[in-house]
Amino acid sequence: MIIILKPGVSEAQALELVGKIEATGLKPLYMPGVERTVLGAIGDERVLQGLHLDSDPRVDEIKPILSKYKLVSRELNPVDSHVMLGKHAVGGDRFTVIAGPCGVESRDQLLGVAEMVKGQGVAALRGGAFKPRTSPYSFQGLGEEGLKLLKEANQLTGLPTVSEVVDAADAELMANYVDCLQIGARNMQNFRLLEAVGRLGLPVLLKRGMSATLEELLLAAEYIVNAGNNQVILCERGIRTFETATRNTLDLNAVAYLKRKTHLPVLVDPSHGTGVRELIAPLSYASAAVGADGIIVEAHLNPCEALSDGHQALDADQFAGLMAGLRPFVEAAGKQL
Amino acid sequence: MIIILKPGVSEAQALELVGKIEATGLKPLYMPGVERTVLGAIGDERVLQGLHLDSDPRVDEIKPILSKYKLVSRELNPVDSHVMLGKHAVGGDRFTVIAGPCGVESRDQLLGVAEMVKGQGVAALRGGAFKPRTSPYSFQGLGEEGLKLLKEANQLTGLPTVSEVVDAADAELMANYVDCLQIGARNMQNFRLLEAVGRLGLPVLLKRGMSATLEELLLAAEYIVNAGNNQVILCERGIRTFETATRNTLDLNAVAYLKRKTHLPVLVDPSHGTGVRELIAPLSYASAAVGADGIIVEAHLNPCEALSDGHQALDADQFAGLMAGLRPFVEAAGKQL
Amino acid sequence: MIIILKPGVSEAQALELVGKIEATGLKPLYMPGVERTVLGAIGDERVLQGLHLDSDPRVDEIKPILSKYKLVSRELNPVDSHVMLGKHAVGGDRFTVIAGPCGVESRDQLLGVAEMVKGQGVAALRGGAFKPRTSPYSFQGLGEEGLKLLKEANQLTGLPTVSEVVDAADAELMANYVDCLQIGARNMQNFRLLEAVGRLGLPVLLKRGMSATLEELLLAAEYIVNAGNNQVILCERGIRTFETATRNTLDLNAVAYLKRKTHLPVLVDPSHGTGVRELIAPLSYASAAVGADGIIVEAHLNPCEALSDGHQALDADQFAGLMAGLRPFVEAAGKQL
Amino acid sequence: MIIILKPGVSEAQALELVGKIEATGLKPLYMPGVERTVLGAIGDERVLQGLHLDSDPRVDEIKPILSKYKLVSRELNPVDSHVMLGKHAVGGDRFTVIAGPCGVESRDQLLGVAEMVKGQGVAALRGGAFKPRTSPYSFQGLGEEGLKLLKEANQLTGLPTVSEVVDAADAELMANYVDCLQIGARNMQNFRLLEAVGRLGLPVLLKRGMSATLEELLLAAEYIVNAGNNQVILCERGIRTFETATRNTLDLNAVAYLKRKTHLPVLVDPSHGTGVRELIAPLSYASAAVGADGIIVEAHLNPCEALSDGHQALDADQFAGLMAGLRPFVEAAGKQL
Repeated sequence: MIIILKPGVSEAQALELVGKIEATGLKPLYMPGVERTVLGAIGDERVLQGLHLDSDPRVDEIKPILSKYKLVSRELNPVDSHVMLGKHAVGGDRFTVIAGPCGVESRDQLLGVAEMVKGQGVAALRGGAFKPRTSPYSFQGLGEEGLKLLKEANQLTGLPTVSEVVDAADAELMANYVDCLQIGARNMQNFRLLEAVGRLGLPVLLKRGMSATLEELLLAAEYIVNAGNNQVILCERGIRTFETATRNTLDLNAVAYLKRKTHLPVLVDPSHGTGVRELIAPLSYASAAVGADGIIVEAHLNPCEALSDGHQALDADQFAGLMAGLRPFVEAAGKQL
Repeated sequence: MIIILKPGVSEAQALELVGKIEATGLKPLYMPGVERTVLGAIGDERVLQGLHLDSDPRVDEIKPILSKYKLVSRELNPVDSHVMLGKHAVGGDRFTVIAGPCGVESRDQLLGVAEMVKGQGVAALRGGAFKPRTSPYSFQGLGEEGLKLLKEANQLTGLPTVSEVVDAADAELMANYVDCLQIGARNMQNFRLLEAVGRLGLPVLLKRGMSATLEELLLAAEYIVNAGNNQVILCERGIRTFETATRNTLDLNAVAYLKRKTHLPVLVDPSHGTGVRELIAPLSYASAAVGADGIIVEAHLNPCEALSDGHQALDADQFAGLMAGLRPFVEAAGKQL
Repeated sequence: MIIILKPGVSEAQALELVGKIEATGLKPLYMPGVERTVLGAIGDERVLQGLHLDSDPRVDEIKPILSKYKLVSRELNPVDSHVMLGKHAVGGDRFTVIAGPCGVESRDQLLGVAEMVKGQGVAALRGGAFKPRTSPYSFQGLGEEGLKLLKEANQLTGLPTVSEVVDAADAELMANYVDCLQIGARNMQNFRLLEAVGRLGLPVLLKRGMSATLEELLLAAEYIVNAGNNQVILCERGIRTFETATRNTLDLNAVAYLKRKTHLPVLVDPSHGTGVRELIAPLSYASAAVGADGIIVEAHLNPCEALSDGHQALDADQFAGLMAGLRPFVEAAGKQL
Repeated sequence: MIIILKPGVSEAQALELVGKIEATGLKPLYMPGVERTVLGAIGDERVLQGLHLDSDPRVDEIKPILSKYKLVSRELNPVDSHVMLGKHAVGGDRFTVIAGPCGVESRDQLLGVAEMVKGQGVAALRGGAFKPRTSPYSFQGLGEEGLKLLKEANQLTGLPTVSEVVDAADAELMANYVDCLQIGARNMQNFRLLEAVGRLGLPVLLKRGMSATLEELLLAAEYIVNAGNNQVILCERGIRTFETATRNTLDLNAVAYLKRKTHLPVLVDPSHGTGVRELIAPLSYASAAVGADGIIVEAHLNPCEALSDGHQALDADQFAGLMAGLRPFVEAAGKQL
């Protein structure tokens, strides 16, 4: 850690801080400069928390050197992790497609979509039973009834299922019905929820918050792994920027960056990442090319009647087109669908 | 609601949509244009949800005319609401100062700060018992022990207390100990939590999410009021932008805008909004000038030893300076401390 | 255009506005509603500018329906445009690679890079003679001396050249030396410069401003075409967001969106778009997959000694690796290098 | 400067870099760590540019310690600068109000507004003769004819005038007619223009770019001062964020921050900073409270007929109301109008 002192801090004051750093067991460094004095502390920077350096009046700025996450870091664990969705391994040389409706709306709707996407060779079925909606007047999901339908769809098609958990109190209940718990963008820093899914051991699909930095995403994953669950898949789903032509700005830099920083698999959600049906296919191809481990896409037999986000759902023909169009890019990336 | 159709949609297709709008009971409008046809629907736009217009392939774009929030809107209820913190009314011609430590750390720490800020005439005491922290390795709060200390501080000083609730499951427990529940920025769209505090009836201090639009903030408040609790205070605490010189960008446009759009009181948090101790006082003065109903500020007897956010906490002298400096601006705004 | 009136505007006031719209020759619409009255105006919305509706006290909001750009719009001109760099056509089924150093530093440096990238089969050579730099103390480019070196490199290698113009006064001078004028991100709304290159007729590579919306980018292109020059190539080069892990956030949504909205070719600059050498190749592949017409990349024989932006330049081996890695993605996209 | 090396860099490689730093005349520091080696360099960091450390393959990250601007820094020059607009000094204990129309439209319009704002006691008159407009189809200003009208207004009222310069080639011409040259947000990094106004010596009002960091704003000012002109006034005019309720997000943190970092005067433009007429007054009051040296506001005798930005212009009554409302806040800030 580098500690930059304010102008005018005396040598005696600086050396007192050096002594404090030394007392934590870290190796201190003292660098008196012409305009400023700079201190260093070498070793595990977490032990410095007790010194409260960031609130010390002598300190102008603190620059950490080491990353704050450890368990999810590729430096610690250079080999790619695999996360199991049923018998399907996410990561490595597989390109995983997860598809299904935004929300579970009815038995017919869910089973119809499930058969359709299974026919296209997807690895898992998505569908929300608990829907976080911006307005209290929008469709909020079927709740446990939706979970039962997901279980039935799983039994009929064999597809493992992914569904969003919105409250720590629901996590155990959901584990009875689905194969993977999704943490949505709005809950990426719901730390109680992260800990709850961390204790469960079920695979977790962790979506990036709409204004979360990549470091914050990795620290949210660290919460889950630190609570005992290393079955974590990260998901880039677009960030909020000034641009309004698309619903979000899909950040594919993030995918390439994450693949270098962490051993966890990284998916992309082009449905939320664009919010525009016509843009889903090209951004899916780009996701394969940039090195993502897969995509999660919204599909619906009748998008016009979807109770939520129908404008970004693909119908059967569009979904078949996506899968066909995707294949050459997945192969160019050296992976297989 | 204005519905812009895609180029090339035929008259017959457009008139079919007109028929659907009419069937909802709203008054339809049909505006064939040179390049595009535009439809209108007049009345309560919520009834249009069943038509799924946003996913209709004939529809290019939808532009709502009416605001999506009703209960919190000043159009519906033009008179300023007051929210009671103990016997102190937030809103109207009072300028409310809430102060205290970021986190409750110990009995001595909390009672010391409580006495200090009471001596300066604040309206309420803040202090976190459950701390949402970006890293799992940071101080996470004292939990229920912290709540008991807040209760004790309340009994000793008479100051009503404000503390953050981070999970719906905690809401009832917290209601036994504190006078106002804070919803933090990271939980502004934790809808389960919004509903839980909505059912309780205790005053709620709702902070704006770090990338939440003002419409989303008002809809989050609508969740709480719609669940039965109209004791809601809004709080601007800075948004996330590209600028890194300050921790967040405090958006005082938001305060002036909210005061025109809603009858709810609006506070400002200059501690999180700047993240820089030296900037807290000037931004507090600006908050009074822009028309805010008060501020919530972090104070600590020994900021250098604070377990969280010490760099943005004021010590006793700085806090006294803030209160003295604030007075003329509050008076210029026609309010009283 | 849709004109939403404020609550409380009387019928007489609304009808007076209707009369004004009619007087412009557009077809007016009058839609009295329960809470608000809405007006419409059908036809070329540019004629409404004379009414100053946006500053009318009766008007709450204006929602344009038609795009503000015409000449660059795909609605008007559905066929892909080609822009000629020397004998190389940008657009259509070609994937164009433009490469070279950030800045022209010396004869040896430029000619060395030119030979290297030519050997890899690029379509054109880039190199800055006038460098816009954030700090007045940074290297500012060689000026006309640099242009002469670009001309020499062109004569020796046959590669057409691209170089940034930073001031309208330089445009004619530069046209003597280079084959394509680049407008940098900081100058995307330097309208005097846009008009100057519009009058020249030389191909223009127009980069998106770092916080420009796609509509603003298209309107900037409209300036150039409106001044008489339809040889315009657009370039996505990353936007400024809250994320600091990468220098900018490369917006590949933008590429897919632009390809649908305009007939102009669209390139991507992954060097500036990421600012991180290791991320250039994966984002180049993603650019090909998303449908871009090419990329512009920084290359240098000795990036460690580059006078600007060396951290994002590829050396000869890295550049060869990029070209080899790119090929299968370009082919998957149905294009050829 | 702190230089963090990549993991795995050997001692020999690190020491070679240490030798290079030493050779520049700076004092090097060598800090081998458990996971990373960190180097330091003490002294004027500008001399390190020749080492190209940011593109060195051994280097992971560089963290500058000293600010990159010198001439505009308060560390170098702790006393507030004053900038003269005619006989009016901007800065110190004066709160400067500059007002006038967005664009000069006609003799009657300009002289009418000039008399009106003079009657309200403003310090200077603003008005654009060259208007940078997003669309080529919008009103572009009267050009030199507008400058002549500004000169006439100055002679009739005695008010010094401020007008925007959009191209380096215009700077000398404009100096014949106006008292202060404004650099608009879109040109904040038009470095050729910065140098041109730097050579002239006329006062410059430099507006922050819509996505410029405060460091970039200060470096843009440094360009002007470095070119020989220290008569620079900074102006916060709102930044571009995700929020669309207001045209821009006025960043008053910036004002408080700038007042601590630079000796230059800082104004606020609440007209562009909000884009909403009703919000101009409260944000003007907040500007006074936060410590700004003044405001620049758009006023028009008939905003409904303004050729640009009428929706954010104040009419005579509104402007009188603003000036009356402003006074108590200016006094509370210890300044005078």
